Amino acid sequence: MAENERKVTPISEIGEFGLIERLTNKIKLKNDSSLVGIGDDAAVLDYKDKKIVVTTDLLTEGIHFNLMYVPLKHLGYKSVVVNLSDVVAMNATPKQVTVSLAISSKFSVEAMEELYDGIQLACEHYNVDLIGGDTTSSLTGLVISITALGEANEEDIVYRKGAQKNDLVCITGDLGGAYMGLQLLERENEVYKVSKKVQPQLEGYNYILGRQLKPEARIDMLKIFKDLDIKPNAMMDISDGLSSEIMHICKNSKVGAKIYEEKIILDKETSAMGEELNINPLVAALNGGEDYELLFTLPIANHDKIRNHPDITVIGHIVDASEGTTLVTTGGSEIELTAQ
Amino acid sequence: MAENERKVTPISEIGEFGLIERLTNKIKLKNDSSLVGIGDDAAVLDYKDKKIVVTTDLLTEGIHFNLMYVPLKHLGYKSVVVNLSDVVAMNATPKQVTVSLAISSKFSVEAMEELYDGIQLACEHYNVDLIGGDTTSSLTGLVISITALGEANEEDIVYRKGAQKNDLVCITGDLGGAYMGLQLLERENEVYKVSKKVQPQLEGYNYILGRQLKPEARIDMLKIFKDLDIKPNAMMDISDGLSSEIMHICKNSKVGAKIYEEKIILDKETSAMGEELNINPLVAALNGGEDYELLFTLPIANHDKIRNHPDITVIGHIVDASEGTTLVTTGGSEIELTAQ
Repeated sequence: MAENERKVTPISEIGEFGLIERLTNKIKLKNDSSLVGIGDDAAVLDYKDKKIVVTTDLLTEGIHFNLMYVPLKHLGYKSVVVNLSDVVAMNATPKQVTVSLAISSKFSVEAMEELYDGIQLACEHYNVDLIGGDTTSSLTGLVISITALGEANEEDIVYRKGAQKNDLVCITGDLGGAYMGLQLLERENEVYKVSKKVQPQLEGYNYILGRQLKPEARIDMLKIFKDLDIKPNAMMDISDGLSSEIMHICKNSKVGAKIYEEKIILDKETSAMGEELNINPLVAALNGGEDYELLFTLPIANHDKIRNHPDITVIGHIVDASEGTTLVTTGGSEIELTAQ
Repeated sequence: MAENERKVTPISEIGEFGLIERLTNKIKLKNDSSLVGIGDDAAVLDYKDKKIVVTTDLLTEGIHFNLMYVPLKHLGYKSVVVNLSDVVAMNATPKQVTVSLAISSKFSVEAMEELYDGIQLACEHYNVDLIGGDTTSSLTGLVISITALGEANEEDIVYRKGAQKNDLVCITGDLGGAYMGLQLLERENEVYKVSKKVQPQLEGYNYILGRQLKPEARIDMLKIFKDLDIKPNAMMDISDGLSSEIMHICKNSKVGAKIYEEKIILDKETSAMGEELNINPLVAALNGGEDYELLFTLPIANHDKIRNHPDITVIGHIVDASEGTTLVTTGGSEIELTAQ
């Protein structure tokens, strides 16, 4: 076989059990809480005196991802990360995932190995054990369902409902990049559909492409919170855009919030892409989603501890529910936020 | 609106969050181990000194179920039960489930409420809490992904790998009924496709239809094992047919087994349907699947404790791996078992 020819084995050739064996035979459990992994009716865990945090996500082809421009390895990685991000948003440490796949006949064994390479890379990177799952057929397309489990001491867990009046509203990192990366990929895909000979123009946009294709969960913030000796009053991850998430926190905490446009950090590639595509990057930050940064509120007494911290930006503060949830623009006008 | 007209609300009318709110607003947590359920980035559980058992299943329309003849409420019930059955097969007590759905635009809010009615009915019947999930879109058809969690003391957990030479091989209940129920439903569906005026002929087959449409997990066996003061050496649930499951136990335990045809219990409806459709009911028991009975092995010293127990039937015994895994027919010949 020539080096650039890729082997394509139909899944029917090795069967469901053969595929599972091939995808999972390298897995070794790393965490003390993972007693038994893949291979029985169920996995067995031991969390001792820790609390268990559980979250789950279902991703379907054509809705959550487009295999025209998303490499399977990246898809596997991202599918795990989006779940770990939810665990981290509880201020908990991810420990295990289960991964279920429904696969149509268009996928080969090698394609599923690529997907699993990404899944396992994420597990290694975040020190998480793959402890179980289900592999089955679908009539059309690929479905990925992941459940993540993590551990925390009860007193460390942070909910959406704890925001207090006068709290600082903070975010990690910059926003809108993942959305701009998606717009770029979609544009190049449209061009490619018209002329298969045109190579995609992706140079100079590594950052926003990475934000879209290979996001990371902000697990580093668990240690940063501990080192700074702070605990957020409320927290969630920014998967649906800042606007929708701040409204969740306000609704759950029965408070309002004022967010300042000038405080929201945009990467220079996000701004440049916005100019190129004529999309306001602020809209990408507010409504774009998939940045997987953390949004949290902190008692104002913590202000000195986080001032000038490179990973934390204060973007506003919590107000009384009667004042609503608003964006104060650079021009000074106040706009009621809405979820997209 | 006339009484026999059914309301059909497009999901787009109330949105994803509206749908989740409508499906989950009645849920109340019952178990002490369920600290926080739906509504945050993740659920929070407390298993104290118990071990956690985790299992997951992914069901896709057209592969695992056919909505032409499976009512959505039954589908919801069964989707939960098949997961609880895996927890029970570890000799553990189910406590929580997460339910993720991907829904195409052909489904209405009312259809999803029917599905959820079945899911919640199963949760009530088995005293299990619905603690989370994900509701999203699919391009085609319905996808259901459920993860179940259960608790057990470490010393009570039963794996597939523990079968010992000379163990009794036991099953609960009768086998092959779910498969025969499916054949009946498929036959009537074929008839219906040819002539929509013909009413399905299902009378006299309530038992096998129930086995297919509304199976139960053998959670009652947890108490029976305790009351009889016995603990299986190996156990799993019979979801893929007896033949495949006994081979799993033998492979994992590095033993062989002899199963006796005459000992395998078939319900009279299973036999009657087999005659009508010209399908050997023994084949349905061995390869049909979906009966969700338990297959387990017991030290032979326990024989007196289970003799004549209405829920337990000895169907064979464990032998040395070198003797293989075989079926001894009523005629006395020995056939090597294979997985379908």
